[in-house]
Amino acid sequence: MAFNTIAIVGLGLMGGSLALALRETWAGVTICGIDRDPAALDAALGAGAVDRASTDLHMAGEAELVVLATPVRAILEQLPRLGEIARDGALLLDLGSTKRQVVAGMNALPTRLLAVGGHPMCGKEIAGFGASEASLFRGCAFVLTPTGRSSAPAMELAGEVARATGALPMIMTPERHDEIVAAISHLPFLVAANLAVVVGEWAGGDERVGQLASSGFRDTSRLAASETAMMMDILQTNRENICTFARRYALAWADLADLFQEGKEDALRATLVRAAEARQELVTSSHLSV
Amino acid sequence: MAFNTIAIVGLGLMGGSLALALRETWAGVTICGIDRDPAALDAALGAGAVDRASTDLHMAGEAELVVLATPVRAILEQLPRLGEIARDGALLLDLGSTKRQVVAGMNALPTRLLAVGGHPMCGKEIAGFGASEASLFRGCAFVLTPTGRSSAPAMELAGEVARATGALPMIMTPERHDEIVAAISHLPFLVAANLAVVVGEWAGGDERVGQLASSGFRDTSRLAASETAMMMDILQTNRENICTFARRYALAWADLADLFQEGKEDALRATLVRAAEARQELVTSSHLSV
Repeated sequence: MAFNTIAIVGLGLMGGSLALALRETWAGVTICGIDRDPAALDAALGAGAVDRASTDLHMAGEAELVVLATPVRAILEQLPRLGEIARDGALLLDLGSTKRQVVAGMNALPTRLLAVGGHPMCGKEIAGFGASEASLFRGCAFVLTPTGRSSAPAMELAGEVARATGALPMIMTPERHDEIVAAISHLPFLVAANLAVVVGEWAGGDERVGQLASSGFRDTSRLAASETAMMMDILQTNRENICTFARRYALAWADLADLFQEGKEDALRATLVRAAEARQELVTSSHLSV
Repeated sequence: MAFNTIAIVGLGLMGGSLALALRETWAGVTICGIDRDPAALDAALGAGAVDRASTDLHMAGEAELVVLATPVRAILEQLPRLGEIARDGALLLDLGSTKRQVVAGMNALPTRLLAVGGHPMCGKEIAGFGASEASLFRGCAFVLTPTGRSSAPAMELAGEVARATGALPMIMTPERHDEIVAAISHLPFLVAANLAVVVGEWAGGDERVGQLASSGFRDTSRLAASETAMMMDILQTNRENICTFARRYALAWADLADLFQEGKEDALRATLVRAAEARQELVTSSHLSV
Protein backbone atom coordinates (compact mmCIF):
# COMPACT_ATOMS: atom_id res chain seq x y z
CA MET A 1 0.00 0.00 0.00
CA ALA A 2 1.64 3.16 -1.26
CA PHE A 3 -0.36 5.62 0.87
CA ASN A 4 -1.99 5.74 4.30
CA THR A 5 -4.30 8.65 3.59
CA ILE A 6 -5.79 9.63 0.23
CA ALA A 7 -7.97 12.66 -0.48
CA ILE A 8 -10.30 12.59 -3.46
CA VAL A 9 -11.65 15.95 -4.56
CA GLY A 10 -14.90 15.50 -6.45
CA LEU A 11 -17.09 12.47 -5.81
CA GLY A 12 -18.84 12.15 -9.15
CA LEU A 13 -18.61 9.13 -11.41
CA MET A 14 -14.81 9.24 -11.71
CA GLY A 15 -13.90 10.19 -8.15
CA GLY A 16 -16.48 7.84 -6.69
CA SER A 17 -15.33 4.94 -8.84
CA LEU A 18 -11.71 5.66 -7.95
CA ALA A 19 -12.56 5.60 -4.24
CA LEU A 20 -14.33 2.27 -4.60
CA ALA A 21 -11.49 0.78 -6.66
CA LEU A 22 -8.66 1.92 -4.35
CA ARG A 23 -10.60 0.74 -1.31
CA GLU A 24 -10.82 -2.75 -2.86
CA THR A 25 -7.10 -2.92 -3.63
CA TRP A 26 -5.76 -1.13 -0.55
CA ALA A 27 -7.98 -2.39 2.24
CA GLY A 28 -6.39 -0.39 5.09
CA VAL A 29 -6.24 3.01 3.41
CA THR A 30 -8.05 6.05 4.82
CA ILE A 31 -9.96 7.89 2.11
CA CYS A 32 -11.09 11.49 2.60
CA GLY A 33 -13.81 12.62 0.23
CA ILE A 34 -14.21 16.28 -0.63
CA ASP A 35 -17.14 17.62 -2.63
CA ARG A 36 -19.06 20.89 -2.65
CA ASP A 37 -22.30 18.87 -2.67
CA PRO A 38 -23.21 17.47 0.79
CA ALA A 39 -25.53 14.91 -0.85
CA ALA A 40 -22.60 13.40 -2.76
CA LEU A 41 -20.62 13.21 0.49
CA ASP A 42 -23.48 11.46 2.26
CA ALA A 43 -23.85 8.99 -0.58
CA ALA A 44 -20.12 8.23 -0.59
CA LEU A 45 -20.04 7.80 3.19
CA GLY A 46 -23.13 5.63 3.04
CA ALA A 47 -21.61 3.40 0.37
CA GLY A 48 -18.41 3.07 2.39
CA ALA A 49 -16.43 4.62 -0.45
CA VAL A 50 -14.86 7.21 1.87
CA ASP A 51 -14.00 7.21 5.57
CA ARG A 52 -14.33 10.94 6.09
CA ALA A 53 -16.08 13.65 4.15
CA SER A 54 -15.98 17.41 3.91
CA THR A 55 -17.01 20.27 1.67
CA ASP A 56 -13.75 22.00 2.64
CA LEU A 57 -10.66 21.53 0.48
CA HIS A 58 -8.50 21.88 3.61
CA MET A 59 -9.22 18.26 4.45
CA ALA A 60 -6.77 17.43 1.64
CA GLY A 61 -3.97 18.78 3.85
CA GLU A 62 -3.73 15.45 5.66
CA ALA A 63 -3.28 13.27 2.58
CA GLU A 64 -0.13 11.87 0.99
CA LEU A 65 -2.05 11.53 -2.28
CA VAL A 66 -4.58 14.11 -3.47
CA VAL A 67 -6.65 13.07 -6.47
CA LEU A 68 -8.48 15.83 -8.34
CA ALA A 69 -11.62 14.38 -9.92
CA THR A 70 -13.60 17.51 -10.77
CA PRO A 71 -14.21 19.06 -14.20
CA VAL A 72 -11.09 20.58 -15.74
CA ARG A 73 -11.75 24.22 -14.93
CA ALA A 74 -12.47 23.37 -11.31
CA ILE A 75 -9.11 21.55 -11.20
CA LEU A 76 -7.41 24.68 -12.54
CA GLU A 77 -8.92 26.67 -9.65
CA GLN A 78 -8.10 24.06 -7.01
CA LEU A 79 -4.44 23.61 -7.94
CA PRO A 80 -3.12 26.93 -6.56
CA ARG A 81 -5.19 26.45 -3.40
CA LEU A 82 -3.73 22.98 -2.93
CA GLY A 83 -0.31 24.56 -3.43
CA GLU A 84 -0.93 26.07 0.02
CA ILE A 85 -3.00 23.31 1.61
CA ALA A 86 -1.21 20.09 0.64
CA ARG A 87 1.43 18.67 2.97
CA ASP A 88 5.12 18.58 2.02
CA GLY A 89 5.94 15.82 -0.45
CA ALA A 90 2.30 15.05 -1.21
CA LEU A 91 1.52 13.74 -4.70
CA LEU A 92 -1.19 15.54 -6.64
CA LEU A 93 -2.80 13.50 -9.42
CA ASP A 94 -5.76 14.66 -11.48
CA LEU A 95 -8.29 12.76 -13.61
CA GLY A 96 -9.13 15.67 -15.89
CA SER A 97 -10.14 15.06 -19.49
CA THR A 98 -7.67 17.52 -21.01
CA LYS A 99 -4.05 17.82 -19.95
CA ARG A 100 -2.18 20.85 -21.28
CA GLN A 101 -3.74 23.48 -19.03
CA VAL A 102 -3.74 21.16 -16.02
CA VAL A 103 -0.04 20.40 -16.49
CA ALA A 104 0.66 24.14 -16.80
CA GLY A 105 -1.16 24.62 -13.50
CA MET A 106 0.85 21.81 -11.91
CA ASN A 107 4.09 23.36 -13.14
CA ALA A 108 3.24 26.46 -11.10
CA LEU A 109 2.92 24.49 -7.83
CA PRO A 110 5.55 24.96 -5.10
CA THR A 111 8.53 22.61 -5.53
CA ARG A 112 7.76 20.97 -2.17
CA LEU A 113 4.93 19.09 -3.92
CA LEU A 114 4.86 16.31 -6.50
CA ALA A 115 2.31 16.35 -9.34
CA VAL A 116 1.41 14.10 -12.27
CA GLY A 117 -1.35 14.67 -14.81
CA GLY A 118 -3.71 11.74 -15.26
CA HIS A 119 -6.62 10.69 -17.44
CA PRO A 120 -8.25 7.27 -17.19
CA MET A 121 -9.82 6.50 -20.58
CA CYS A 122 -13.16 5.31 -19.37
CA GLY A 123 -16.52 6.72 -18.45
CA LYS A 124 -20.17 6.49 -19.14
CA GLU A 125 -22.84 9.00 -19.95
CA ILE A 126 -24.41 8.83 -16.49
CA ALA A 127 -22.82 11.27 -14.07
CA GLY A 128 -22.71 11.44 -10.29
CA PHE A 129 -21.62 9.26 -7.40
CA GLY A 130 -24.62 7.00 -7.86
CA ALA A 131 -23.20 5.75 -11.16
CA SER A 132 -19.82 4.86 -9.62
CA GLU A 133 -18.46 1.35 -9.81
CA ALA A 134 -15.20 -0.14 -8.58
CA SER A 135 -14.63 -1.83 -11.94
CA LEU A 136 -14.92 1.34 -14.05
CA PHE A 137 -11.18 1.62 -14.71
CA ARG A 138 -10.47 -2.08 -15.22
CA GLY A 139 -8.58 -2.76 -18.43
CA CYS A 140 -8.64 0.91 -19.49
CA ALA A 141 -5.65 2.96 -20.51
CA PHE A 142 -4.75 5.43 -17.74
CA VAL A 143 -2.77 8.24 -19.32
CA LEU A 144 -0.07 9.77 -17.13
CA THR A 145 1.52 13.03 -18.25
CA PRO A 146 4.78 14.13 -16.61
CA THR A 147 4.97 17.70 -15.27
CA GLY A 148 7.73 19.90 -13.89
CA ARG A 149 6.80 18.35 -10.51
CA SER A 150 7.11 14.74 -11.69
CA SER A 151 10.19 13.12 -10.20
CA ALA A 152 10.87 9.52 -11.17
CA PRO A 153 9.40 8.31 -7.84
CA ALA A 154 6.31 10.49 -8.46
CA MET A 155 5.75 8.81 -11.83
CA GLU A 156 6.23 5.43 -10.14
CA LEU A 157 3.64 6.26 -7.49
CA ALA A 158 1.15 7.56 -10.06
CA GLY A 159 1.62 4.31 -11.99
CA GLU A 160 0.87 2.38 -8.82
CA VAL A 161 -2.39 4.29 -8.35
CA ALA A 162 -3.39 3.55 -11.95
CA ARG A 163 -2.61 -0.14 -11.59
CA ALA A 164 -4.43 -0.25 -8.24
CA THR A 165 -7.64 0.69 -10.10
CA GLY A 166 -7.08 -2.13 -12.59
CA ALA A 167 -6.08 0.28 -15.37
CA LEU A 168 -2.96 0.20 -17.51
CA PRO A 169 -0.70 3.24 -17.15
CA MET A 170 0.39 4.87 -20.42
CA ILE A 171 2.87 7.74 -20.31
CA MET A 172 2.30 10.50 -22.84
CA THR A 173 2.98 14.23 -23.24
CA PRO A 174 0.03 16.52 -22.49
CA GLU A 175 0.21 17.84 -26.08
CA ARG A 176 -0.14 14.41 -27.67
CA HIS A 177 -2.84 13.43 -25.18
CA ASP A 178 -4.94 16.47 -25.99
CA GLU A 179 -4.64 15.88 -29.73
CA ILE A 180 -5.68 12.25 -29.42
CA VAL A 181 -8.66 12.89 -27.14
CA ALA A 182 -9.84 15.63 -29.50
CA ALA A 183 -10.03 12.91 -32.17
CA ILE A 184 -11.43 9.97 -30.22
CA SER A 185 -13.54 11.67 -27.59
CA HIS A 186 -14.35 15.36 -28.17
CA LEU A 187 -15.05 15.09 -31.89
CA PRO A 188 -17.36 12.08 -31.32
CA PHE A 189 -19.17 14.09 -28.63
CA LEU A 190 -19.83 16.99 -31.02
CA VAL A 191 -20.81 14.57 -33.79
CA ALA A 192 -23.34 12.91 -31.47
CA ALA A 193 -24.66 16.22 -30.14
CA ASN A 194 -25.17 17.57 -33.64
CA LEU A 195 -26.99 14.37 -34.63
CA ALA A 196 -29.33 14.67 -31.66
CA VAL A 197 -30.06 18.33 -32.44
CA VAL A 198 -30.75 17.68 -36.13
CA VAL A 199 -32.98 14.66 -35.59
CA GLY A 200 -34.70 16.12 -32.52
CA GLU A 201 -35.59 19.39 -34.25
CA TRP A 202 -36.84 17.61 -37.34
CA ALA A 203 -38.90 15.10 -35.36
CA GLY A 204 -40.89 17.81 -33.65
CA GLY A 205 -43.34 15.98 -31.48
CA ASP A 206 -43.83 12.87 -33.67
CA GLU A 207 -43.45 9.95 -31.27
CA ARG A 208 -43.00 7.48 -34.08
CA VAL A 209 -39.54 8.87 -34.81
CA GLY A 210 -38.33 7.76 -31.41
CA GLN A 211 -40.28 4.52 -31.63
CA LEU A 212 -38.46 3.57 -34.81
CA ALA A 213 -35.05 4.60 -33.47
CA SER A 214 -33.23 1.46 -32.42
CA SER A 215 -29.73 0.64 -31.22
CA GLY A 216 -28.09 2.39 -34.18
CA PHE A 217 -29.44 5.81 -33.26
CA ARG A 218 -29.05 5.15 -29.55
CA ASP A 219 -25.36 4.31 -29.84
CA THR A 220 -24.43 6.97 -32.36
CA SER A 221 -26.08 9.68 -30.25
CA ARG A 222 -25.13 8.31 -26.81
CA LEU A 223 -22.37 10.83 -26.09
CA ALA A 224 -24.85 13.68 -26.56
CA ALA A 225 -26.08 12.71 -23.09
CA SER A 226 -22.72 13.53 -21.51
CA GLU A 227 -22.78 15.97 -18.61
CA THR A 228 -22.83 19.47 -20.11
CA ALA A 229 -20.74 21.16 -17.40
CA MET A 230 -17.94 18.64 -17.78
CA MET A 231 -18.05 18.85 -21.57
CA MET A 232 -17.98 22.67 -21.56
CA ASP A 233 -14.75 22.58 -19.57
CA ILE A 234 -13.28 20.01 -21.94
CA LEU A 235 -14.24 21.95 -25.04
CA GLN A 236 -12.88 25.22 -23.66
CA THR A 237 -9.56 23.75 -22.56
CA ASN A 238 -8.88 21.90 -25.83
CA ARG A 239 -10.20 24.48 -28.22
CA GLU A 240 -7.49 24.55 -30.92
CA ASN A 241 -7.35 20.79 -31.35
CA ILE A 242 -11.11 20.47 -31.49
CA CYS A 243 -11.38 23.31 -34.02
CA THR A 244 -8.92 21.45 -36.23
CA PHE A 245 -10.94 18.25 -36.07
CA ALA A 246 -14.23 20.09 -36.53
CA ARG A 247 -12.86 21.51 -39.80
CA ARG A 248 -11.59 18.11 -40.92
CA TYR A 249 -15.00 16.61 -40.17
CA ALA A 250 -16.83 19.31 -42.14
CA LEU A 251 -14.54 18.87 -45.16
CA ALA A 252 -14.87 15.09 -45.13
CA TRP A 253 -18.64 15.42 -44.73
CA ALA A 254 -18.82 17.66 -47.79
CA ASP A 255 -16.78 15.13 -49.80
CA LEU A 256 -19.04 12.29 -48.70
CA ALA A 257 -22.21 14.24 -49.47
CA ASP A 258 -20.85 15.12 -52.93
CA LEU A 259 -20.07 11.49 -53.79
CA PHE A 260 -23.52 10.58 -52.63
CA GLN A 261 -25.44 13.36 -54.33
CA GLU A 262 -23.59 12.91 -57.62
CA GLY A 263 -24.34 9.20 -57.57
CA LYS A 264 -20.67 8.16 -57.75
CA GLU A 265 -21.33 4.64 -56.50
CA ASP A 266 -17.82 3.22 -56.84
CA ALA A 267 -16.17 6.11 -55.03
CA LEU A 268 -18.88 6.11 -52.36
CA ARG A 269 -18.46 2.38 -51.83
CA ALA A 270 -14.69 2.81 -51.55
CA THR A 271 -15.14 5.50 -48.88
CA LEU A 272 -17.56 3.35 -46.89
CA VAL A 273 -15.20 0.37 -47.06
CA ARG A 274 -12.39 2.64 -45.89
CA ALA A 275 -14.60 3.80 -42.99
CA ALA A 276 -15.36 0.24 -41.93
CA GLU A 277 -11.69 -0.71 -42.10
CA ALA A 278 -10.53 2.38 -40.22
CA ARG A 279 -13.08 1.77 -37.49
CA GLN A 280 -12.07 -1.88 -37.24
CA GLU A 281 -8.41 -0.97 -36.92
CA LEU A 282 -9.01 1.67 -34.24
CA VAL A 283 -11.32 -0.53 -32.21
CA THR A 284 -9.09 -3.60 -32.47
CA SER A 285 -6.03 -1.76 -31.24
CA SER A 286 -7.99 -0.65 -28.21
CA HIS A 287 -7.51 -4.12 -26.73
CA LEU A 288 -4.64 -3.23 -24.50
CA SER A 289 -1.90 -5.62 -23.63
CA VAL A 290 0.81 -3.95 -21.63
CA MET B 1 -50.24 -21.11 -37.04
CA ALA B 2 -51.04 -18.93 -40.01
CA PHE B 3 -48.93 -20.80 -42.60
CA ASN B 4 -47.85 -24.35 -43.32
CA THR B 5 -44.94 -23.48 -45.58
CA ILE B 6 -42.80 -20.34 -45.45
CA ALA B 7 -40.00 -19.43 -47.83
CA ILE B 8 -37.31 -17.04 -46.66
CA VAL B 9 -35.16 -15.52 -49.39
CA GLY B 10 -31.80 -14.42 -48.00
CA LEU B 11 -30.38 -16.12 -44.93
CA GLY B 12 -28.25 -13.33 -43.53
CA LEU B 13 -28.72 -11.78 -40.10
CA MET B 14 -32.34 -10.74 -40.73
CA GLY B 15 -33.57 -13.77 -42.67
CA GLY B 16 -31.75 -16.17 -40.37
CA SER B 17 -33.11 -14.52 -37.24
CA LEU B 18 -36.61 -14.52 -38.71
CA ALA B 19 -36.36 -18.25 -39.45
CA LEU B 20 -35.23 -18.96 -35.89
CA ALA B 21 -37.97 -16.77 -34.39
CA LEU B 22 -40.83 -18.20 -36.50
CA ARG B 23 -39.63 -21.73 -35.81
CA GLU B 24 -39.87 -21.06 -32.08
CA THR B 25 -43.40 -19.64 -32.29
CA TRP B 26 -44.81 -21.93 -34.97
CA ALA B 27 -43.32 -25.31 -34.12
CA GLY B 28 -44.88 -27.28 -36.96
CA VAL B 29 -44.13 -24.91 -39.83
CA THR B 30 -41.99 -25.94 -42.81
CA ILE B 31 -39.37 -23.31 -43.61
CA CYS B 32 -37.66 -23.23 -47.00
CA GLY B 33 -34.43 -21.23 -47.07
CA ILE B 34 -33.20 -19.68 -50.31
CA ASP B 35 -29.80 -18.05 -50.65
CA ARG B 36 -27.29 -17.71 -53.47
CA ASP B 37 -24.54 -18.75 -51.03
CA PRO B 38 -24.45 -22.53 -50.39
CA ALA B 39 -22.47 -21.96 -47.19
CA ALA B 40 -25.31 -19.91 -45.73
CA LEU B 41 -27.76 -22.68 -46.65
CA ASP B 42 -25.57 -25.30 -44.97
CA ALA B 43 -25.29 -23.18 -41.85
CA ALA B 44 -29.06 -22.62 -41.70
CA LEU B 45 -29.78 -26.32 -42.24
CA GLY B 46 -27.18 -27.26 -39.65
CA ALA B 47 -28.69 -24.89 -37.08
CA GLY B 48 -32.16 -26.27 -37.77
CA ALA B 49 -33.35 -22.83 -38.83
CA VAL B 50 -34.71 -24.19 -42.14
CA ASP B 51 -36.10 -27.55 -43.21
CA ARG B 52 -35.13 -27.32 -46.85
CA ALA B 53 -32.61 -25.21 -48.68
CA SER B 54 -31.95 -24.15 -52.24
CA THR B 55 -30.04 -21.61 -54.27
CA ASP B 56 -33.01 -21.50 -56.66
CA LEU B 57 -35.77 -18.93 -56.14
CA HIS B 58 -38.26 -21.45 -57.59
CA MET B 59 -38.41 -23.16 -54.22
CA ALA B 60 -40.52 -20.18 -53.10
CA GLY B 61 -43.31 -21.46 -55.38
CA GLU B 62 -44.48 -23.88 -52.68
CA ALA B 63 -44.87 -21.31 -49.92
CA GLU B 64 -47.96 -19.48 -48.67
CA LEU B 65 -45.66 -16.80 -47.22
CA VAL B 66 -42.54 -15.59 -49.00
CA VAL B 67 -40.28 -13.34 -46.94
CA LEU B 68 -37.69 -11.31 -48.82
CA ALA B 69 -34.70 -10.72 -46.56
CA THR B 70 -32.05 -9.61 -49.03
CA PRO B 71 -30.61 -6.12 -49.58
CA VAL B 72 -33.12 -3.71 -51.13
CA ARG B 73 -31.89 -3.79 -54.71
CA ALA B 74 -31.90 -7.59 -54.69
CA ILE B 75 -35.52 -7.45 -53.49
CA LEU B 76 -36.35 -5.16 -56.42
CA GLU B 77 -34.94 -7.78 -58.81
CA GLN B 78 -36.63 -10.71 -57.10
CA LEU B 79 -40.14 -9.23 -56.99
CA PRO B 80 -40.97 -9.58 -60.72
CA ARG B 81 -39.53 -13.09 -60.73
CA LEU B 82 -41.70 -14.01 -57.74
CA GLY B 83 -44.61 -12.53 -59.68
CA GLU B 84 -44.26 -15.63 -61.86
CA ILE B 85 -43.01 -18.15 -59.30
CA ALA B 86 -45.25 -17.58 -56.26
CA ARG B 87 -48.43 -19.61 -55.91
CA ASP B 88 -51.87 -18.01 -56.16
CA GLY B 89 -52.83 -16.09 -53.03
CA ALA B 90 -49.34 -16.24 -51.54
CA LEU B 91 -48.33 -13.33 -49.29
CA LEU B 92 -45.04 -11.60 -50.09
CA LEU B 93 -43.47 -9.69 -47.22
CA ASP B 94 -40.07 -8.03 -47.35
CA LEU B 95 -37.68 -6.90 -44.62
CA GLY B 96 -35.93 -4.24 -46.70
CA SER B 97 -34.54 -1.13 -45.06
CA THR B 98 -36.24 1.34 -47.42
CA LYS B 99 -39.81 1.07 -48.53
CA ARG B 100 -40.86 3.38 -51.40
CA GLN B 101 -39.16 1.50 -54.22
CA VAL B 102 -40.08 -1.88 -52.75
CA VAL B 103 -43.73 -0.89 -52.47
CA ALA B 104 -43.63 0.36 -56.08
CA GLY B 105 -42.26 -3.05 -57.08
CA MET B 106 -45.00 -4.80 -55.11
CA ASN B 107 -47.66 -2.66 -56.80
CA ALA B 108 -46.53 -4.13 -60.13
CA LEU B 109 -47.09 -7.73 -59.00
CA PRO B 110 -49.96 -9.72 -60.53
CA THR B 111 -53.25 -9.26 -58.66
CA ARG B 112 -53.33 -12.98 -57.83
CA LEU B 113 -50.68 -12.25 -55.14
CA LEU B 114 -50.76 -10.41 -51.81
CA ALA B 115 -47.89 -8.17 -50.76
CA VAL B 116 -47.00 -6.01 -47.74
CA GLY B 117 -43.82 -4.00 -47.22
CA GLY B 118 -42.05 -4.65 -43.93
CA HIS B 119 -39.11 -3.35 -41.94
CA PRO B 120 -38.25 -4.65 -38.48
CA MET B 121 -36.36 -1.86 -36.66
CA CYS B 122 -33.52 -3.92 -35.30
CA GLY B 123 -30.16 -5.16 -36.38
CA LYS B 124 -26.56 -5.24 -35.43
CA GLU B 125 -23.36 -4.43 -37.21
CA ILE B 126 -22.39 -8.10 -37.65
CA ALA B 127 -23.81 -9.58 -40.83
CA GLY B 128 -24.46 -13.15 -41.96
CA PHE B 129 -26.39 -16.16 -40.75
CA GLY B 130 -23.83 -16.81 -38.01
CA ALA B 131 -24.97 -13.65 -36.22
CA SER B 132 -28.65 -14.66 -36.26
CA GLU B 133 -30.63 -14.97 -33.07
CA ALA B 134 -34.26 -15.85 -32.47
CA SER B 135 -34.63 -12.88 -30.10
CA LEU B 136 -33.41 -10.23 -32.56
CA PHE B 137 -36.90 -8.81 -33.22
CA ARG B 138 -38.22 -9.01 -29.68
CA GLY B 139 -39.70 -5.71 -28.53
CA CYS B 140 -38.77 -3.91 -31.76
CA ALA B 141 -41.12 -1.90 -33.93
CA PHE B 142 -41.92 -3.85 -37.13
CA VAL B 143 -43.04 -1.33 -39.72
CA LEU B 144 -45.70 -2.58 -42.15
CA THR B 145 -46.43 -0.51 -45.24
CA PRO B 146 -49.61 -1.21 -47.21
CA THR B 147 -49.29 -1.68 -50.98
CA GLY B 148 -51.74 -2.00 -53.86
CA ARG B 149 -51.66 -5.75 -53.08
CA SER B 150 -52.48 -5.34 -49.37
CA SER B 151 -56.01 -6.52 -48.67
CA ALA B 152 -57.23 -6.25 -45.09
CA PRO B 153 -56.54 -9.99 -44.53
CA ALA B 154 -53.05 -9.51 -45.99
CA MET B 155 -52.32 -6.76 -43.45
CA GLU B 156 -53.70 -9.02 -40.71
CA LEU B 157 -51.42 -11.87 -41.76
CA ALA B 158 -48.37 -9.61 -41.98
CA GLY B 159 -49.16 -8.36 -38.48
CA GLU B 160 -49.30 -11.97 -37.29
CA VAL B 161 -45.85 -12.62 -38.73
CA ALA B 162 -44.48 -9.53 -36.98
CA ARG B 163 -46.01 -10.55 -33.65
CA ALA B 164 -44.77 -14.12 -34.11
CA THR B 165 -41.21 -12.75 -34.04
CA GLY B 166 -41.92 -10.86 -30.82
CA ALA B 167 -41.99 -7.50 -32.59
CA LEU B 168 -44.72 -4.86 -32.47
CA PRO B 169 -46.37 -4.10 -35.81
CA MET B 170 -46.59 -0.41 -36.74
CA ILE B 171 -48.46 0.60 -39.87
CA MET B 172 -46.98 3.51 -41.82
CA THR B 173 -46.85 4.83 -45.36
CA PRO B 174 -43.67 4.05 -47.29
CA GLU B 175 -43.03 7.79 -47.68
CA ARG B 176 -43.12 8.52 -43.96
CA HIS B 177 -41.07 5.40 -43.22
CA ASP B 178 -38.32 6.41 -45.61
CA GLU B 179 -38.16 9.92 -44.15
CA ILE B 180 -37.91 8.63 -40.59
CA VAL B 181 -35.25 6.02 -41.31
CA ALA B 182 -33.21 8.64 -43.17
CA ALA B 183 -33.15 10.56 -39.87
CA ILE B 184 -32.66 7.79 -37.33
CA SER B 185 -30.70 5.24 -39.29
CA HIS B 186 -29.11 6.42 -42.55
CA LEU B 187 -27.91 9.79 -41.26
CA PRO B 188 -26.34 8.13 -38.17
CA PHE B 189 -24.61 5.64 -40.49
CA LEU B 190 -23.05 8.43 -42.56
CA VAL B 191 -22.14 10.37 -39.40
CA ALA B 192 -20.38 7.30 -38.01
CA ALA B 193 -18.64 6.46 -41.30
CA ASN B 194 -17.36 10.02 -41.63
CA LEU B 195 -16.07 9.92 -38.06
CA ALA B 196 -14.20 6.68 -38.73
CA VAL B 197 -12.66 8.08 -41.92
CA VAL B 198 -11.54 11.34 -40.28
CA VAL B 199 -10.05 9.72 -37.17
CA GLY B 200 -8.57 6.77 -39.08
CA GLU B 201 -6.80 8.96 -41.62
CA TRP B 202 -5.47 11.30 -38.97
CA ALA B 203 -4.28 8.44 -36.72
CA GLY B 204 -2.08 7.01 -39.45
CA GLY B 205 -0.36 4.07 -37.87
CA ASP B 206 -0.20 5.37 -34.28
CA GLU B 207 -1.49 2.51 -32.14
CA ARG B 208 -1.99 4.77 -29.16
CA VAL B 209 -4.94 6.45 -30.83
CA GLY B 210 -6.86 3.18 -30.81
CA GLN B 211 -5.56 2.31 -27.34
CA LEU B 212 -7.02 5.50 -25.93
CA ALA B 213 -10.33 5.11 -27.76
CA SER B 214 -12.88 3.78 -25.29
CA SER B 215 -16.61 3.15 -25.36
CA GLY B 216 -17.41 6.68 -26.55
CA PHE B 217 -15.58 6.28 -29.83
CA ARG B 218 -16.65 2.66 -30.19
CA ASP B 219 -20.35 3.48 -29.87
CA THR B 220 -20.34 6.66 -31.95
CA SER B 221 -18.53 4.88 -34.80
CA ARG B 222 -20.25 1.50 -34.50
CA LEU B 223 -22.55 1.88 -37.50
CA ALA B 224 -19.51 2.48 -39.73
CA ALA B 225 -19.02 -1.29 -39.46
CA SER B 226 -22.37 -1.98 -41.17
CA GLU B 227 -22.27 -4.22 -44.21
CA THR B 228 -21.31 -2.04 -47.17
CA ALA B 229 -23.41 -3.86 -49.80
CA MET B 230 -26.56 -3.50 -47.71
CA MET B 231 -25.85 0.15 -46.96
CA MET B 232 -25.16 0.99 -50.61
CA ASP B 233 -28.61 -0.30 -51.52
CA ILE B 234 -30.18 1.68 -48.72
CA LEU B 235 -28.39 4.89 -49.65
CA GLN B 236 -29.28 4.56 -53.32
CA THR B 237 -32.95 3.82 -52.71
CA ASN B 238 -33.47 6.68 -50.24
CA ARG B 239 -31.30 9.26 -51.90
CA GLU B 240 -33.51 12.39 -51.72
CA ASN B 241 -34.33 12.02 -48.04
CA ILE B 242 -30.73 11.34 -47.12
CA CYS B 243 -29.52 14.33 -49.16
CA THR B 244 -31.92 16.52 -47.21
CA PHE B 245 -30.62 15.28 -43.87
CA ALA B 246 -27.00 15.47 -45.01
CA ARG B 247 -27.54 19.16 -45.77
CA ARG B 248 -29.25 19.74 -42.43
CA TYR B 249 -26.38 18.04 -40.66
CA ALA B 250 -23.78 20.15 -42.48
CA LEU B 251 -25.60 23.39 -41.65
CA ALA B 252 -26.05 22.48 -38.00
CA TRP B 253 -22.39 21.44 -37.84
CA ALA B 254 -21.31 24.82 -39.19
CA ASP B 255 -23.47 26.58 -36.58
CA LEU B 256 -22.01 24.48 -33.78
CA ALA B 257 -18.44 25.01 -34.97
CA ASP B 258 -19.03 28.78 -35.16
CA LEU B 259 -20.37 28.97 -31.61
CA PHE B 260 -17.38 26.98 -30.48
CA GLN B 261 -14.73 28.84 -32.42
CA GLU B 262 -16.10 32.24 -31.45
CA GLY B 263 -16.11 31.26 -27.79
CA LYS B 264 -19.84 31.90 -27.33
CA GLU B 265 -20.08 29.82 -24.17
CA ASP B 266 -23.71 30.52 -23.29
CA ALA B 267 -25.02 29.75 -26.74
CA LEU B 268 -22.81 26.67 -26.99
CA ARG B 269 -24.03 25.42 -23.62
CA ALA B 270 -27.64 25.99 -24.68
CA THR B 271 -27.08 23.94 -27.84
CA LEU B 272 -25.46 21.10 -25.91
CA VAL B 273 -28.31 21.07 -23.39
CA ARG B 274 -30.77 20.99 -26.28
CA ALA B 275 -28.86 18.04 -27.77
CA ALA B 276 -28.97 16.09 -24.52
CA GLU B 277 -32.68 16.77 -24.12
CA ALA B 278 -33.49 15.87 -27.72
CA ARG B 279 -31.57 12.63 -27.44
CA GLN B 280 -33.29 11.79 -24.17
CA GLU B 281 -36.71 12.40 -25.68
CA LEU B 282 -36.02 10.29 -28.77
CA VAL B 283 -34.51 7.42 -26.81
CA THR B 284 -37.23 7.44 -24.17
CA SER B 285 -40.05 7.28 -26.70
CA SER B 286 -38.37 4.21 -28.21
CA HIS B 287 -39.74 2.15 -25.33
CA LEU B 288 -42.70 0.78 -27.16
CA SER B 289 -45.95 -0.04 -25.54
CA VAL B 290 -48.54 -1.03 -28.07
